[in-house]
Amino acid sequence: MKINDYIELIDKKLEEFMPINYPQKIFKAMKYTVTLKGKRLRPIMCLETCKMFGGNFEDAIPTACAIEMLHAQTLIHDDLPCMDNDMYRRGQLTNHMVFGEANAVLAGDALLTFAPQTILKNSKHLGAEKLLKIMEEYFHAAGAHGVIAGQVVDIESEKFEVNEDDEQLPEILDYIHTHKTADLFKLALRTGAIIANATEQQIEDITEFGQYMGVAFQIADDILDVTSTFEEMGKTLGKDKEAGKLTYVNLYGLEKSKKDLNELIDKCFDILSKHNLKSEIFEQILTKIRNN
Amino acid sequence: MKINDYIELIDKKLEEFMPINYPQKIFKAMKYTVTLKGKRLRPIMCLETCKMFGGNFEDAIPTACAIEMLHAQTLIHDDLPCMDNDMYRRGQLTNHMVFGEANAVLAGDALLTFAPQTILKNSKHLGAEKLLKIMEEYFHAAGAHGVIAGQVVDIESEKFEVNEDDEQLPEILDYIHTHKTADLFKLALRTGAIIANATEQQIEDITEFGQYMGVAFQIADDILDVTSTFEEMGKTLGKDKEAGKLTYVNLYGLEKSKKDLNELIDKCFDILSKHNLKSEIFEQILTKIRNN
Repeated sequence: MKINDYIELIDKKLEEFMPINYPQKIFKAMKYTVTLKGKRLRPIMCLETCKMFGGNFEDAIPTACAIEMLHAQTLIHDDLPCMDNDMYRRGQLTNHMVFGEANAVLAGDALLTFAPQTILKNSKHLGAEKLLKIMEEYFHAAGAHGVIAGQVVDIESEKFEVNEDDEQLPEILDYIHTHKTADLFKLALRTGAIIANATEQQIEDITEFGQYMGVAFQIADDILDVTSTFEEMGKTLGKDKEAGKLTYVNLYGLEKSKKDLNELIDKCFDILSKHNLKSEIFEQILTKIRNN
Repeated sequence: MKINDYIELIDKKLEEFMPINYPQKIFKAMKYTVTLKGKRLRPIMCLETCKMFGGNFEDAIPTACAIEMLHAQTLIHDDLPCMDNDMYRRGQLTNHMVFGEANAVLAGDALLTFAPQTILKNSKHLGAEKLLKIMEEYFHAAGAHGVIAGQVVDIESEKFEVNEDDEQLPEILDYIHTHKTADLFKLALRTGAIIANATEQQIEDITEFGQYMGVAFQIADDILDVTSTFEEMGKTLGKDKEAGKLTYVNLYGLEKSKKDLNELIDKCFDILSKHNLKSEIFEQILTKIRNN
């Protein structure tokens, strides 16, 4: 499988898993953000990890798609007027701009349970024990110890003055990146590994990989926020700088950000080679993150 | 167990299941609405159903508490400015009035996965198969085919003129009541029955009971909205009438509402006696709903 084959498969399956039932408005709102054209990074990571550990990647399709739904949920709610108040996402209007604020809140809510429901409905052959493990991973990553923890601290951090001498800021920034970004990466990797019957040690290794990759991805995103354009990114940029937001670039400057990004990507490659894990897909993704 | 014993037990367990971890703000916001003094109707229904079908009600405690968390989630999001815009709930300020809108959205999100996580963490002895059944029930009731369907159609119905001659309105109202209210009742009853190893037929019977009871409860609530005071209810009243909202009382008038409420409660008693189900607790709750 090449990256584009994965994307095509995931898009087709997302379409299949999300029929428009009554009340149509809510199903349309849910589907709208999930099916916006995207890189499908998280589901690809789930499928490829499953394959890399000797599993059948097709077993991981419902889980991979559910993680994309969860990702869309976080985007819908993060874009709300009371949060980041964003009008564009992936080059299109955000959910609340199309469906209204109330429906956007409810669409996000609905996705939070629709996603694990999709796993249970379509992965019965994995067996009850494994499904429960996947549920636990999902709840952890989606919840107040996972992405939500990241978002809460991110919102709080907006009050801080970004100041290189403030010793607590690096730790806070690391916390935000870990939870807001790396936790969903780790969810994708860990569930892919679990489905492939990877060992505990392998799951630990891939979790470490996901931590580095998630933080690297977020640094790359922070860099792009100051160096890219709306046309390239499909969302309003430069908002971070404008808002004096706690980001990697605002805290450390562009040069150190690029250096640290490079080091994290190197660490990811090291983990792959140390454990003799071969994946062209991951090599391509890592290289893409490194080069923005 | 008397009703007050159940309430005391549920309050104690909710406290226990919800420690304040980091980031404190999100855990405090989640806990705030869950632990507001309430009737604990849904968790009591879960525990009592488990007992009524010969199970050990203590096995159902985590599930019962999770359903109360889910209920609180719906309250937090329904009260938001973009939805019902309510300032008071159970006599206290609503979640977003205390923690801000962004945190209220996130607290609701977090509860949606914290609730089933609480079940998995604390009910391992039920076994994987039964836990998966409970998860399926939970996802169905919490999602776009459950409470959210009710809330979406409720919001849409605000556009309608309430008019006795409009033939589609009774069906829409029934849909709203079924999903917004009865679906959580049915979740409580069905999971209680599942934990007690009830038969398929028994689960069907108790589902029918929950449907009648849920609609009856909502009619009683609509009646109270026009006949009660803020002090009695702990929330702003008369808003339904003011907003020309599609409610049972606005559509059918007070007299027919009271009559239909009575008939539904009779049906609930009939189901209990027909299936030889004995429960003082349910008798008390039904009588209380009947008499407002």
